[in-house]
Amino acid sequence: MTISKTYTIASIPGDGIGREVIPAGQRVIETVAQKRGFAVKWDTYDWSCERYAQTGRMMPEDGIEQVKGSDAIYLGAVGYPGVPDHVSLWGLLIPLRRELDQYANVRPVRLLKGVQSPLAGRSAEDIDFVVVRENVEGEYSEIGGRIYEGTEREMAMQEAVFTRKGVDRIMEYAFELAKTRKRGHVTSATKSNGIVHTMPFWDERFAAASERHPGIETAQFHIDILTAHFVLHPDWFDVVVGSNLFGDILSDLGPAVAGSIGIAPSANINPEGVYPSMFEPVHGSAPDIAGKGIANPVAAIWTAAMMLEHLGEAEAAADIERAIEHSLASEETRTADLGGRANTEEATNAVVDALSA
Amino acid sequence: MTISKTYTIASIPGDGIGREVIPAGQRVIETVAQKRGFAVKWDTYDWSCERYAQTGRMMPEDGIEQVKGSDAIYLGAVGYPGVPDHVSLWGLLIPLRRELDQYANVRPVRLLKGVQSPLAGRSAEDIDFVVVRENVEGEYSEIGGRIYEGTEREMAMQEAVFTRKGVDRIMEYAFELAKTRKRGHVTSATKSNGIVHTMPFWDERFAAASERHPGIETAQFHIDILTAHFVLHPDWFDVVVGSNLFGDILSDLGPAVAGSIGIAPSANINPEGVYPSMFEPVHGSAPDIAGKGIANPVAAIWTAAMMLEHLGEAEAAADIERAIEHSLASEETRTADLGGRANTEEATNAVVDALSA
Ligand SMILES: CC(C)[C@H](C(=O)O)[C@@H](O)C(=O)O
Ligand SMILES: CC(C)[C@H](C(=O)O)[C@@H](O)C(=O)O
Repeated sequence: MTISKTYTIASIPGDGIGREVIPAGQRVIETVAQKRGFAVKWDTYDWSCERYAQTGRMMPEDGIEQVKGSDAIYLGAVGYPGVPDHVSLWGLLIPLRRELDQYANVRPVRLLKGVQSPLAGRSAEDIDFVVVRENVEGEYSEIGGRIYEGTEREMAMQEAVFTRKGVDRIMEYAFELAKTRKRGHVTSATKSNGIVHTMPFWDERFAAASERHPGIETAQFHIDILTAHFVLHPDWFDVVVGSNLFGDILSDLGPAVAGSIGIAPSANINPEGVYPSMFEPVHGSAPDIAGKGIANPVAAIWTAAMMLEHLGEAEAAADIERAIEHSLASEETRTADLGGRANTEEATNAVVDALSA
Repeated sequence: MTISKTYTIASIPGDGIGREVIPAGQRVIETVAQKRGFAVKWDTYDWSCERYAQTGRMMPEDGIEQVKGSDAIYLGAVGYPGVPDHVSLWGLLIPLRRELDQYANVRPVRLLKGVQSPLAGRSAEDIDFVVVRENVEGEYSEIGGRIYEGTEREMAMQEAVFTRKGVDRIMEYAFELAKTRKRGHVTSATKSNGIVHTMPFWDERFAAASERHPGIETAQFHIDILTAHFVLHPDWFDVVVGSNLFGDILSDLGPAVAGSIGIAPSANINPEGVYPSMFEPVHGSAPDIAGKGIANPVAAIWTAAMMLEHLGEAEAAADIERAIEHSLASEETRTADLGGRANTEEATNAVVDALSA
């Protein structure tokens, strides 16, 4: 097959098992690229807590400039005993998301064959939705701080900031995504019945988006009862759109109800394509099992499928998803965290073999 | 038996099924009072959306003054088609909670026999915890609003305010509560790994409380993964303490995992007893089934048990809880929402009979 296109992907394996699962994902991408007739040029970066321990920085000062020209960023996981969370987050993850304006955080939630949901009597058809989280403003604004620190009068404040542009564009992303899906339904996570001043505004912008997209059905729930519905009625949901905090919560709860917290992928998307989007497994660097060759590569591989889909290689993405389902279906090729007997290499082999078959 | 004590309880049935389940709860309280030798003087208030429709106010201007002297407040549910949420909430529920400084919202989460958990393979021993929510400050402060309304530049802001006193006293409540429980363990809901300025402060006050209570074991999780753990590991939890928003979410998610969202009780406590505490079922006024005599009275009855326990009638409370479990165990005496055949009266009779037996 002739090569139609070459993508430049910045790969940042990070720390711990990030360094095991990103190479596994790269192998899978290479295999499917050959099959589907495209190529990947990998730019690999050693940005990590280990680098921080040696140099005092998670990434170089011009790090963002270095990756800005890539077609996508493929990130493993950062985190290392002894390096505080805020260092690894503010030194790498958060600036990448914010400076590259990756305002849509997207996490598919699907019950896959071979995976055990904690819910009774649920099968694959019941759980298939996507959480779309606003990723750069809202409750996670930089504005806030403390006064009278260390005294009885101490107070801490945090400002939630919702802008019309910020809310409208995440709504637009959610509705456009719904159009590509079978059901075409969007649920909004809100809390406009209580005290919070920002949520009635969120609701108005949701209603405005809904008017722009008359073909899409909608629903909305307050975040408290919405979390309950995730557990009681996961089959109600197709696309779920939430603010930075509500989306953060729902995108962990969703994979939990689908039994997939260890294999969940995520994407930080800049929909306009002005900047590269970034793709990362949801799991962390897992220092306790790092270096043993037993990490589950499926999250990184599923993440690779999201990345290829974003790059326009929808068939390659679908190939990978089928291959994942195939590999998860047997104990022989699942890793131990899913009750299987495979190590990282064997689990990856199973996906690669299924792709080549 | 001689009457040792008379309690004055302000009863506010409210709207819809509130008017059916509060009388059911009162019947149960009367029964157990006779058995345990105390009496109740009921002051009944018609505060409701119906009253709002007639008079323009949910409660009289001096409403709070009227109930201030009660030993407790027993609230049904407010809400009525056509009356917006913010009217019923700001006209009644929120001022009561705030002006009576009911800063601890307490919700037990328990898997009861006869109730179906949505989780696979869970039994009663696995789910038995209490969510303690800070109920008057935090993310639900009155501070915030909009600017440039109706224009492209529109923005909405909401200030979260955490005070040392506010955080310390809810921590204290949670640790003291843990001391009365078998396990003696407190989990804190946080989000200090990210951007939010208030949560590192929350963590410090949790650590300070933990030092004051060396006998109590502790854990803390970020709210996103904590919601996942509620589903995956409900057996990890004993007392869970959260801010106003995090507690709000967890106290709906908790009952959902225990299958008890329709029967869950809640208490709004002023621990110092300067003001009366308020007890309300978690469910709403359910206009769709109101007036049919089929509402499940268990939430109101369980709420009554919490109220009596708070008043110092621990034995009466335990009696009621046993009677509830007895009534839930059979289809004959459970209501339809739990797969049973009883109406409100029959379900209440079952509890009353079990108390008298
Ligand atoms: C109705 C709403 C204002 C209220 C709250 O958020 O406190 C409710 O969700 C609750 O938990 O009692
Ligand atoms: C680690 C943390 C800052 C991050 C977030 O809140 O965005 C994480 O929870 C996530 O969902 O990617």
